[in-house]
Amino acid sequence: MHLEGLHHVPHSNWAYLYDKDTFHLRVRTQKENVKQVFALTGDKYDWKNYHHEHRMQKIVTDQLFDYWETAVKPQNKRFSYAFRFHAGEETVWMTEEGIFTRQPEPPEGYFERPYIHEVDLFKAPEWAKSAVFYQIMPDRFANGDPGNDPESISAWGDAPTVESFFGGDLQGIIDHLDHLAELGITAIYLTPIFEAPSNHKYNTTDYRKVDPNLGDLAVLKNLVKNAHARQIRVVLDAVFNHISAQSSQFQDVIEHGPHSPYAGWFHIHEFPVKVTDGKPNYEAFGFFAEMPKLNTANPEARKYLLDTAAYWMNEVAIDGWRLDVANEVDHTFWRNFRRLVKTINPDAFIIGEVWSDSMRWLHGDQFDSVMNYPLARRLIEYLNNGDIDAQRFGAQISNLLMRYPQQANEVLFNLLASHDTPRILTQLGGDARKLKLAAAFLFTFTGTPCILYGDEIGLEGTGDPDCRKCMIWEKEFQNRELFECYRSLIRLRVTFPALQTGCFHVLRADPGERAFVYERKDAHAHFVISLNPSEQLVSLSLPLEGAFQDVTNKEQVISTGGCLQLHLEPFSYQILIKR
Amino acid sequence: MHLEGLHHVPHSNWAYLYDKDTFHLRVRTQKENVKQVFALTGDKYDWKNYHHEHRMQKIVTDQLFDYWETAVKPQNKRFSYAFRFHAGEETVWMTEEGIFTRQPEPPEGYFERPYIHEVDLFKAPEWAKSAVFYQIMPDRFANGDPGNDPESISAWGDAPTVESFFGGDLQGIIDHLDHLAELGITAIYLTPIFEAPSNHKYNTTDYRKVDPNLGDLAVLKNLVKNAHARQIRVVLDAVFNHISAQSSQFQDVIEHGPHSPYAGWFHIHEFPVKVTDGKPNYEAFGFFAEMPKLNTANPEARKYLLDTAAYWMNEVAIDGWRLDVANEVDHTFWRNFRRLVKTINPDAFIIGEVWSDSMRWLHGDQFDSVMNYPLARRLIEYLNNGDIDAQRFGAQISNLLMRYPQQANEVLFNLLASHDTPRILTQLGGDARKLKLAAAFLFTFTGTPCILYGDEIGLEGTGDPDCRKCMIWEKEFQNRELFECYRSLIRLRVTFPALQTGCFHVLRADPGERAFVYERKDAHAHFVISLNPSEQLVSLSLPLEGAFQDVTNKEQVISTGGCLQLHLEPFSYQILIKR
Repeated sequence: MHLEGLHHVPHSNWAYLYDKDTFHLRVRTQKENVKQVFALTGDKYDWKNYHHEHRMQKIVTDQLFDYWETAVKPQNKRFSYAFRFHAGEETVWMTEEGIFTRQPEPPEGYFERPYIHEVDLFKAPEWAKSAVFYQIMPDRFANGDPGNDPESISAWGDAPTVESFFGGDLQGIIDHLDHLAELGITAIYLTPIFEAPSNHKYNTTDYRKVDPNLGDLAVLKNLVKNAHARQIRVVLDAVFNHISAQSSQFQDVIEHGPHSPYAGWFHIHEFPVKVTDGKPNYEAFGFFAEMPKLNTANPEARKYLLDTAAYWMNEVAIDGWRLDVANEVDHTFWRNFRRLVKTINPDAFIIGEVWSDSMRWLHGDQFDSVMNYPLARRLIEYLNNGDIDAQRFGAQISNLLMRYPQQANEVLFNLLASHDTPRILTQLGGDARKLKLAAAFLFTFTGTPCILYGDEIGLEGTGDPDCRKCMIWEKEFQNRELFECYRSLIRLRVTFPALQTGCFHVLRADPGERAFVYERKDAHAHFVISLNPSEQLVSLSLPLEGAFQDVTNKEQVISTGGCLQLHLEPFSYQILIKR
Repeated sequence: MHLEGLHHVPHSNWAYLYDKDTFHLRVRTQKENVKQVFALTGDKYDWKNYHHEHRMQKIVTDQLFDYWETAVKPQNKRFSYAFRFHAGEETVWMTEEGIFTRQPEPPEGYFERPYIHEVDLFKAPEWAKSAVFYQIMPDRFANGDPGNDPESISAWGDAPTVESFFGGDLQGIIDHLDHLAELGITAIYLTPIFEAPSNHKYNTTDYRKVDPNLGDLAVLKNLVKNAHARQIRVVLDAVFNHISAQSSQFQDVIEHGPHSPYAGWFHIHEFPVKVTDGKPNYEAFGFFAEMPKLNTANPEARKYLLDTAAYWMNEVAIDGWRLDVANEVDHTFWRNFRRLVKTINPDAFIIGEVWSDSMRWLHGDQFDSVMNYPLARRLIEYLNNGDIDAQRFGAQISNLLMRYPQQANEVLFNLLASHDTPRILTQLGGDARKLKLAAAFLFTFTGTPCILYGDEIGLEGTGDPDCRKCMIWEKEFQNRELFECYRSLIRLRVTFPALQTGCFHVLRADPGERAFVYERKDAHAHFVISLNPSEQLVSLSLPLEGAFQDVTNKEQVISTGGCLQLHLEPFSYQILIKR
């Protein structure tokens, strides 16, 4: 047996409480090296009377390893555990103390979950599991009130620059809720709407005020009320990592230096505050002097920001927060933030902007979710690059699934693109067939999908500022076929919990092949989803019993001799549901 | 290269902030498979101008893997990173996205430390690094005030039973501070002293009252004052997992059932509260009906316990808390606890009782330290079992060192035995030679050593209650040679920071051999420590330059031809210091 491949870490994504009664154990073995794994569990205070053996399921495989999982419902609220591995004639045991060829006497040296506390359970809002999000940059979505336009605006649809304004506002969103309802989305995530000099508003000057170019408190309330009336939730963007250099707080520090009451709100290297050759002598977002970094460990700054979060939740009944540059703010702050937010509204959804491994924030004490850029990156690479075969794509997304606990995976903020990336259609070479494949994957994979405004009608654009184009409202210029594709996929997604929280298995991901087939399944429904990002018609046979129906064209596909024959058109997807 | 052996996890014991300016990166490779590893770091916002390459050091090796480490002092407060591995002609890179044969373009897909926040730094009190602890069970240490004895006590020195009292008290400790000062210890950890019906007092009836059999508030203050006057700190035992069934709170629940204001303080399965065939219908410590588990998620219970912690810190100026059954209390509670304790006294030392992997509590938000039973278990096994060779022992303790960040290792509560285990001398078959070896290791290894009262004078005893014997005060019945051994080892320990926080390297741990040699080293001192737990005289040669002195007999050992010749007597240790 390849002992180097065996891996488990207690109190982590390898061993976590999934719901108040269910504990998930995962373990890793070298790929195709181990035949069966068992988890041995028991109560350390009375092993004799309380012990069990759990056959583990091989749930996914990546480039190097197989991953096994089992759900344990411990009789008592605590258990110790070990693993037993079988490979051919060989059997080994793994405990916290190492690997053994005979079973070590339990429970000493075993792994341990000392006690299961519901208060420590990582629990995301139920609604987020079935939600479909839609991201809006208000200045670019719709101009509903020309009366609040900035002094100088570009014509709607002109190519955006870093500086340009287009007059879009909150009233514009209210006016187009029909579009969103028709599309079928159930939640909106708005990029920042608080007072800020820029068009993106990621440089706040007043956290307690709706930006006058976007509307006012009354319009925001109206938006939330109207959205809620259509069962659409609203999540706002909290930019707590940095503030605008134009904010009264930072201006006060410029003016009064160390004597400013706000001096401690920032990370100033030395006074007076200055910018030399474009480099600030204070910490900033990136190296941008106009976005001084806030010191979230400062008690007054922290209180101000937390009070801000509370203010908007109490005043406007928003449904959650997307946290900008969340990974550069301290963990202590986010723990306070979560405690506050969940006290006001236990159903509030907290999504952090983190582009890399986010386990540190997903233990239940900080975020509910993070923006899943790594997933998008892998999907795009697979769809675009003929060299990345189905096996590699399957391995990569399997590896991602093993990074976090299942309850995080279920609400991970899956996006194809955002205001910070080129448009997805553009990343896919303008090929709408590929975009439909990407969308089919997005809406049938584990995690909460989010659409960037306009992606559903074929908006294109390279990186910022080009990706932040104006929404196109003239139907003749919209890709309505794409819209209908999105619409039907969303309807499917929200109708079937199996597509939200059902288990995920790779059914076919062969080396050298392009076609990728997986299933989503729960007690009520069983889907088989196939992607064929190639110019070839692909025929393949899956060892599946029963009768299936193609959800798109309603055709029957019936298994014969225990085999389901699939015929996949070039650059197409197929979604089958078992009948 | 064995790719399956490569391992790194961001935001963990593999990547952590060591002090406010220094970040430690660790990576794992298959044993003896990789020749050199480099960490590649850079600022993701400006990689071109801010990037570095760090040659990593192979610091330890366990049964299967080599472990590499480097200390990074990032120029900016953030960095992304990857690793480059060299084995023969082969070179591979590892990022968060996997393993590559060409360097992936930085920084996308790289591992990341998005920002370094001092507020998130895990920082244990400085004093704990150089402390030598002494654990006292007050009823068994010394009877300083016969006036407060329980009604019926056994004669001092009688064999203890589960129920017996001996009349020891806080005054007894005050009376024997000379003994402790002579021994050289710098901190006392007292098992519980609050009102409780048992001799061990782990079943509290009143958390705000010194147990009358042990003394009162004035005597406790006196003890702390006298100890502090001798530069000895005092840490108390907080038993917050459970309470006594005799406590007024639990009695109220028995009486008033769900209507008791304390009903929510416990985990009651159903009312009325009862015990059937010895099994309680409420959660308890283990299955002990007389120790109902506290619901530390209940706001009132939580407040009461936290106020208790604050009360004793404010009233008596204690120096920290040892937390009983700490792993069975929820993390949320401990975060609140740490925040409170460190607010009152940033120098307070928090030690959790956790017998298994404790990383979950050692991120800086909960404990400073845990009781290091796993170390004791491995050391005892090595000293007792001729089959466990030096290589295996070296591998095991190396593996333990890689479990936690270095700042945790530096203050890990290293103990040979406690009130919950058989006496160390007994575990070592009554062989004082072995105990001296164990002590030599304890006082020269990384981590804060703790002596169980009486171990230093040769007290023996099997498991509870036998290990909780009375202290022997008649010098003629004490093993004074052992005491002198402890005393000189402690003096050495507290004199040389190299033995506290110096780096640790295994110098010799050969398969099939018993002798184990390691070094501790900092900028000021360099120790070479040898253990020979065998009946054989062992001669060995180490590739070390320079002149060393044996700290025990002051003899010179001088390197010749680049080799240091060691001659180790049977069952002896040797501590050399470089001159």
